[in-house]
Amino acid sequence: MSAASRFSLNQATVKLADLATAVRVTVDAGIPAIGLWREPVQEVGGERAARLVRDAGLRVSSLCRGGFFTLPDGPERRAALDDNRRAIEEAAALEAPALVLVAGGLPAGSRDLVGARSRVAEALDALAPDAAAAGVSLAIEPLHPMYAADRAVVSTLGQALDLAAPFDPAVVGVVVDTFHVWWDPDLAAQIARAGREARIASYQVCDWVTPIAADPLLSRGIPGDGHIDFASITRMVRDAGYAGDVECEVFRQDVWDDDPAAVAVRSLDAYERLVEPSLS
Amino acid sequence: MSAASRFSLNQATVKLADLATAVRVTVDAGIPAIGLWREPVQEVGGERAARLVRDAGLRVSSLCRGGFFTLPDGPERRAALDDNRRAIEEAAALEAPALVLVAGGLPAGSRDLVGARSRVAEALDALAPDAAAAGVSLAIEPLHPMYAADRAVVSTLGQALDLAAPFDPAVVGVVVDTFHVWWDPDLAAQIARAGREARIASYQVCDWVTPIAADPLLSRGIPGDGHIDFASITRMVRDAGYAGDVECEVFRQDVWDDDPAAVAVRSLDAYERLVEPSLS
Repeated sequence: MSAASRFSLNQATVKLADLATAVRVTVDAGIPAIGLWREPVQEVGGERAARLVRDAGLRVSSLCRGGFFTLPDGPERRAALDDNRRAIEEAAALEAPALVLVAGGLPAGSRDLVGARSRVAEALDALAPDAAAAGVSLAIEPLHPMYAADRAVVSTLGQALDLAAPFDPAVVGVVVDTFHVWWDPDLAAQIARAGREARIASYQVCDWVTPIAADPLLSRGIPGDGHIDFASITRMVRDAGYAGDVECEVFRQDVWDDDPAAVAVRSLDAYERLVEPSLS
Repeated sequence: MSAASRFSLNQATVKLADLATAVRVTVDAGIPAIGLWREPVQEVGGERAARLVRDAGLRVSSLCRGGFFTLPDGPERRAALDDNRRAIEEAAALEAPALVLVAGGLPAGSRDLVGARSRVAEALDALAPDAAAAGVSLAIEPLHPMYAADRAVVSTLGQALDLAAPFDPAVVGVVVDTFHVWWDPDLAAQIARAGREARIASYQVCDWVTPIAADPLLSRGIPGDGHIDFASITRMVRDAGYAGDVECEVFRQDVWDDDPAAVAVRSLDAYERLVEPSLS
């Protein structure tokens, strides 16, 4: 594997491994970058996590995740915003270029989707100065519309770009995750737009596998295991000028139950066969 | 209940009942219209079905369903188109104003979403003359993006309107089904467009319930049981000028297992509380 590879293993793909193990299997597979999650980083402490990753010679491609700020004003919302400020600091300490944001779903008992979406815009407004000061990009991740009620009211790339539009592209960008956007009839146009607006903060590859898992959060697959045409979406992202890392982020029980070293190798192999050829 | 009501019980909501039972519980609940499905109609034969419904004094609001025409050219595709022609004839015999079309998913083993979508356009081109001759509107139903791989490559109202655009609005229209489109950030604009283009052939109400059922096809709920704001979507449809029937179409095991007479009454009650007030 070339040291110039743009592949990054997102830590969620080996979710049951602790940070030291995730770092080790990433390095052992010859993967040059890793996408981190806050919880396993906090388990060892931010400073030690940063040292672990740096000593292993890995880049951090992103930190997951902030967000969950659709609540109306009140103590819970203020706590969520404070937690996002801590996440921005953690991302900066890890030298992660982007903090991935998952918007959050409808507040309990609410059916006001328009209101929830407007509170996402307000939260970005509140957090953008902190992100700019820390040199971290807030990366809005549109999630598949099947999560609109309970996880993320940001459902399309176009909507994420509309939310990002008022801000400096270095401060607020978007995530293109194939699993979440592959179905979108407007995908080619919106990826091209994301490129023109310099908003692509992260590209994540993950397959759409049917039947949908009984827990729909765990329905993601390693590229090649499902229905997504990675060549065509990767070419769109390449043509949009994206030059950053490409993360493989898979939530799937049988992948988690597998040996993390084997999963790292398998993810890299899928990337080299199905994604990398379309990047150049 | 006023005889002027626009409520229609879609037969799928009482799926385990035969046609005679579905008709009886619809009439007994004071519901003036019914949405029919081909299989239970074929069980009794088209002529007898038409007589059953007519003798009961019911309108037929739609016939479900044609479609499933994403296959590449070959005997299977030709058989699918022939079957759609039969469905058009059946809709005409039942005096159903619209034949609901579900596009079909990716052909087995294919990842060519763009190609599958283009074959939907070709199928509409092939079928439009038959529909025009029969006086039946082909109603393209965008399905929720979670069905894009295995059931319907038409995923948004905007995409359905683009597919319908080349045709006479009396011949090719769209279905607005709340379950499938409620999440769409572009929904208000696309419903308004559908009104301007005179394309709304059917309005169906059905709730989005979480957690998503283990069989995601059965994740629909009677209005009020989930997350959808029926008042706001119904006002959009009203303001778009739609004056037709409003179907309640629910696929859900515990609804199917319930007494069909009770389900008919419950559906009507939900409509009268949550939908009808926003129609006027």
